[in-house]
Amino acid sequence: MTISPVHNYLALDEQTAKDLAISLNFFSKNAELTCREIGDGNLNLVFQVAEKGRKGIIIKQALPYAKVVGESWPLTIDRARIEANALKLQYSHAQNLVPQVYFSDDRLAVTVMEDLSSLTIARTGLIERKSYPLLSEHIGTFLANTLYFTSDYGLHPFKKKEYVRTFSNPELCKITEDLVFTDPFFNSVTNDFEEELLPYIQELWDDFNLKLEVAKLKKSFITESEALLHGDLHTGSIFADKTQTKVIDPEFAFYGPIGFDIGQFIANLTFQVIARNDREGKVELIHHIIHTWNTFTETFSKHWQESGDAYTKVNGYLEYVLKKAFQDSAGFSGCELIRRTVGLAHVADLDGISDKENRLHAKQRCLSLGRELILRRQHLSTVEELTDFICKHTS
Amino acid sequence: MTISPVHNYLALDEQTAKDLAISLNFFSKNAELTCREIGDGNLNLVFQVAEKGRKGIIIKQALPYAKVVGESWPLTIDRARIEANALKLQYSHAQNLVPQVYFSDDRLAVTVMEDLSSLTIARTGLIERKSYPLLSEHIGTFLANTLYFTSDYGLHPFKKKEYVRTFSNPELCKITEDLVFTDPFFNSVTNDFEEELLPYIQELWDDFNLKLEVAKLKKSFITESEALLHGDLHTGSIFADKTQTKVIDPEFAFYGPIGFDIGQFIANLTFQVIARNDREGKVELIHHIIHTWNTFTETFSKHWQESGDAYTKVNGYLEYVLKKAFQDSAGFSGCELIRRTVGLAHVADLDGISDKENRLHAKQRCLSLGRELILRRQHLSTVEELTDFICKHTS
Repeated sequence: MTISPVHNYLALDEQTAKDLAISLNFFSKNAELTCREIGDGNLNLVFQVAEKGRKGIIIKQALPYAKVVGESWPLTIDRARIEANALKLQYSHAQNLVPQVYFSDDRLAVTVMEDLSSLTIARTGLIERKSYPLLSEHIGTFLANTLYFTSDYGLHPFKKKEYVRTFSNPELCKITEDLVFTDPFFNSVTNDFEEELLPYIQELWDDFNLKLEVAKLKKSFITESEALLHGDLHTGSIFADKTQTKVIDPEFAFYGPIGFDIGQFIANLTFQVIARNDREGKVELIHHIIHTWNTFTETFSKHWQESGDAYTKVNGYLEYVLKKAFQDSAGFSGCELIRRTVGLAHVADLDGISDKENRLHAKQRCLSLGRELILRRQHLSTVEELTDFICKHTS
Repeated sequence: MTISPVHNYLALDEQTAKDLAISLNFFSKNAELTCREIGDGNLNLVFQVAEKGRKGIIIKQALPYAKVVGESWPLTIDRARIEANALKLQYSHAQNLVPQVYFSDDRLAVTVMEDLSSLTIARTGLIERKSYPLLSEHIGTFLANTLYFTSDYGLHPFKKKEYVRTFSNPELCKITEDLVFTDPFFNSVTNDFEEELLPYIQELWDDFNLKLEVAKLKKSFITESEALLHGDLHTGSIFADKTQTKVIDPEFAFYGPIGFDIGQFIANLTFQVIARNDREGKVELIHHIIHTWNTFTETFSKHWQESGDAYTKVNGYLEYVLKKAFQDSAGFSGCELIRRTVGLAHVADLDGISDKENRLHAKQRCLSLGRELILRRQHLSTVEELTDFICKHTS
């Protein structure tokens, strides 16, 4: 049976993925196609379909479950709709920084898009000490464009509220609410950490000031519809090489606080600051953090001048919005640093440190820096203060 | 032609309203019915249908336009869906304080509900110096129940996000965004004020600190989905007598910041503090303001103990949420005081002061108190500080 877009949901395999590509006229009927499943298979199927010797296409399909630590839990395939719509919207505002979507079908939970396999995942590259000289320039621009043009400053109020409804994403948000903001700060069954860290983690669990500040950050995450977030902007969601950067996988997209995307990205650069042993390697990442923020603010501020909202002309309002985004970013960074150490989902930057003592030491620094960022975020005013703070707590 | 719920939209008249009531089996076919249109006709038709000598029903129908200062502008009848759904939800959490809905039909934009015409509108009653000894007890309870049980503390995250979508209310929110938060603070064509006030109003328009603080409050209104608000909780939206209070007309309902409803109610009590000349009369209203806030916090705090959210057990979080709601309330009160003096929609409490000098003096006090509340809201901690502040700026 040939799969076609008019079908209801059915998981693809390599043959039906090829059939779909042909039925959508990406290739001629007689084309000699190769098809490989290249996803990690936890949440999605990812097929690379190509005609011999030519650039192909990617067919991504959401699975109706998530495999986590060996167990499956049901997970809405509606996230494919969210992801395809987010990719299209982000592409319209940051064309060179997002893969182009050629086709999407909500019932099949399928998105057909540009093949980026000539690039590498930034996390992997950074761990291998590849340099991405344009990474922060590009991500700063991506953040400024996608966040500004989906905010109340860049949209008519009706359009903004339509997007808030379109990108309502309860199931994926719940994962973040639990795994980023809640479970790591309590003795929860989903947590996964090295037992030697327990004394340090127990200190976090007993720290009521910390929990109060995380409660405020979680409140911000669940109530503040400032802009359409990517929602999962870590270095594993970025394809890059020396000249190109492409942000992928926005299935967690929803309307939330601007600082969340920025904070997650900064935290994921910070894992490398912590994991690297040489000054030069650390400095490279510190420069990326500073340049991300500076590019974001410069570009966001430039867009702000074009806003039709009367209040954007009021002295001090842009500074207020940016200061809030900055301090939120610092707090969200802190949550990310802690949850990748204590919670269910880890990062290879830390887990890949083969020497146990070094690895535990790096993770301890994530815990202490994360805590300080959450508690002191409102005392930080400039990105240089933030990076000094990171250096002080990780050296 | 008989109107029935299966019809598409058609404005009712007294005959078709009776027909509808019969077709819905509220009355027998041969019942001798009276029907009167009792609405003000600006936004809605309101029919009171009754069998001779017995309590009747109210049929409310949204009109597809709003008549404002003689002009009509198109306005979605979807607000009838919002209003009926909000009434039902509020009734489920504050049964004695909201009219019961017997039937609703989104296409006809019709809501059939309990007849409350034995009560009077609280604004009218307060102007006539009627006493409503239970008004603040009841409104404090209404606020606590409806706001808590629609918040993230009282709902599963999926249900909360479903409600956020259901109560997305772009057109009515736009009216508030323009008429409460924007136009009165700029020299806008929609403004409507007595010309003698121009020098004082010009001062507001030139006050960039004030505008910056209003920008922050407007940002809160458009981005913070804390709870399902009534959205228009002035004393004209409340039916009352000595023992009963019923909150009506939630067509502006949407997910917004908790302090907005509280602030609008406090401001509308404050109009009476300002309009009354005798100490006793003022004190009665000051007591209502204090008792509204105290009832709200006591009841909200009691519900909070039952929350399933782990963070509600963290010391200081409830206090943080209440402090934010309180300071937001003070700011939103200030906006309401100013917009009812400068903007399009006025209140009879002020406009009804027949002596011109007294009236202008009262309006000036609204402007100066409104400004101070907006600018100083974050220095206010207790409701007694708030009422002292109100007395100081209005005596």
